[in-house]
Amino acid sequence: MPSYHILVMSDGTGETAYRMLKAAMAQFQEDVVITRYANIREREQIREILRAASAASSEDTLVVYTFVGSELRSFLKGRADEEGIQSVDLLGPLMDSLAGFFKKPPVAKPGLLHRVDEEYFNRIDAIEYALRHDDGRSIKDIGSADLILVGVSRVSKTPVSIYLAQEGWKVANVTTVLGMKPPKELFEVDQHKVVGLKIDPSRLMEVRTERLRQLGVNDSSYADLERVKEELTHTENIFKQNPAWPVIDVTGKSIEEIAQDILDKVIGRGRKL
Amino acid sequence: MPSYHILVMSDGTGETAYRMLKAAMAQFQEDVVITRYANIREREQIREILRAASAASSEDTLVVYTFVGSELRSFLKGRADEEGIQSVDLLGPLMDSLAGFFKKPPVAKPGLLHRVDEEYFNRIDAIEYALRHDDGRSIKDIGSADLILVGVSRVSKTPVSIYLAQEGWKVANVTTVLGMKPPKELFEVDQHKVVGLKIDPSRLMEVRTERLRQLGVNDSSYADLERVKEELTHTENIFKQNPAWPVIDVTGKSIEEIAQDILDKVIGRGRKL
Repeated sequence: MPSYHILVMSDGTGETAYRMLKAAMAQFQEDVVITRYANIREREQIREILRAASAASSEDTLVVYTFVGSELRSFLKGRADEEGIQSVDLLGPLMDSLAGFFKKPPVAKPGLLHRVDEEYFNRIDAIEYALRHDDGRSIKDIGSADLILVGVSRVSKTPVSIYLAQEGWKVANVTTVLGMKPPKELFEVDQHKVVGLKIDPSRLMEVRTERLRQLGVNDSSYADLERVKEELTHTENIFKQNPAWPVIDVTGKSIEEIAQDILDKVIGRGRKL
Repeated sequence: MPSYHILVMSDGTGETAYRMLKAAMAQFQEDVVITRYANIREREQIREILRAASAASSEDTLVVYTFVGSELRSFLKGRADEEGIQSVDLLGPLMDSLAGFFKKPPVAKPGLLHRVDEEYFNRIDAIEYALRHDDGRSIKDIGSADLILVGVSRVSKTPVSIYLAQEGWKVANVTTVLGMKPPKELFEVDQHKVVGLKIDPSRLMEVRTERLRQLGVNDSSYADLERVKEELTHTENIFKQNPAWPVIDVTGKSIEEIAQDILDKVIGRGRKL
């Protein structure tokens, strides 16, 4: 068994590189150990990390890096070549293309992506908003939400709300319950913010059964197919009575996919970065 | 004012491309409109999108794309060149390097990154875990947490917990309160999972003042510098009595940076992807 080692080096958190690597690695299904070096700002740091890596094993090591400045980029490339270590510049080609596109050089200042500015505080507020407005809580002030997700228990409302909150959206969510009307506040807000989530009944039954198993709970009605179908029909009727709400089918979709569907439907495909 | 338009095209959600673009754009500070096209699997889709873009304006349009298969990659490149639209392949160079590194071709199957598998359900569970264990809630079972964050109000415990939960870590957090001992359960768990968060008093005062302003609340003691210092001293004493806990200074750091510091300290720099 070869033991591969990938070094991630960045002048920021290394998060961009890490996510990109994760996307690419999903296509290879190899076991690798990733070592992340964040906040690299000096040539000496690069020199030392590469020297140690080369001493350990240059053949089974790959370096992927994101530096906003071209100087550290080319320094790293040169050193890696000398040490016989393969390296991949993830950000450089895109930075060069953007410089051509905008006809101006980049600021090339590390740390701008994760700077603690107003947008940053908005994101934190949005996360706390999602927590306060999870599962019908704080229903009195859902008028302040950007988006309100409606659907049965375990249709992914909470994780999707949290995901969208990380992107800065204030999201509330409301659970539909069999035999009960949704709270009246839901119909008093701008109806274009409300999104219904639906799911295939067998899939929901599977998700709930798994949930009960994990919790060690034995509640037959929660994961019973007939009961699940009734709940979904009840919910679908609510959606039909409110045709302004877009309805999204979450069956088989990941949180990221559901979140994109919601934004595409409610905000539109073209958005500011 | 030029109005730039960037098209993101992907055979997945386009999330990897979007994040990379966001990192690079932080260095240019230009206003752009991003249009994201997800789940592209056919040449015909690419052809139509590029034709429409070219008809609108080929000069002010840039295409950035992530395709796991080399066929759609080269098709897009060719079409964009013909339409006179600049294009940047974000994933291709990394995929090629990894293929060389592992000495085998990629699976090249779209959708693997966001597949709904066991790891995916673990992430959802972790998010719900963070919600259930926010701010000292469900303290009885914090033994099941991977990480427990401890610190004063508004030191970023909640957003950091949520961020780490998205990465699959089960995180609980406990707020230290002046004049009160932390719950005894905190000392009964594996002490190597506990992390203290500290912050500069003036910075905390600013954060709290801003918070009160937003809430429209007028509580002088919460954001009073003397009171804030007392709270922090109280908390620091708790940290000193528990030297097994690593302590991280969050002053001026973003959520992503704090999360990386925590993982580096508790888990170590080298981690499985």
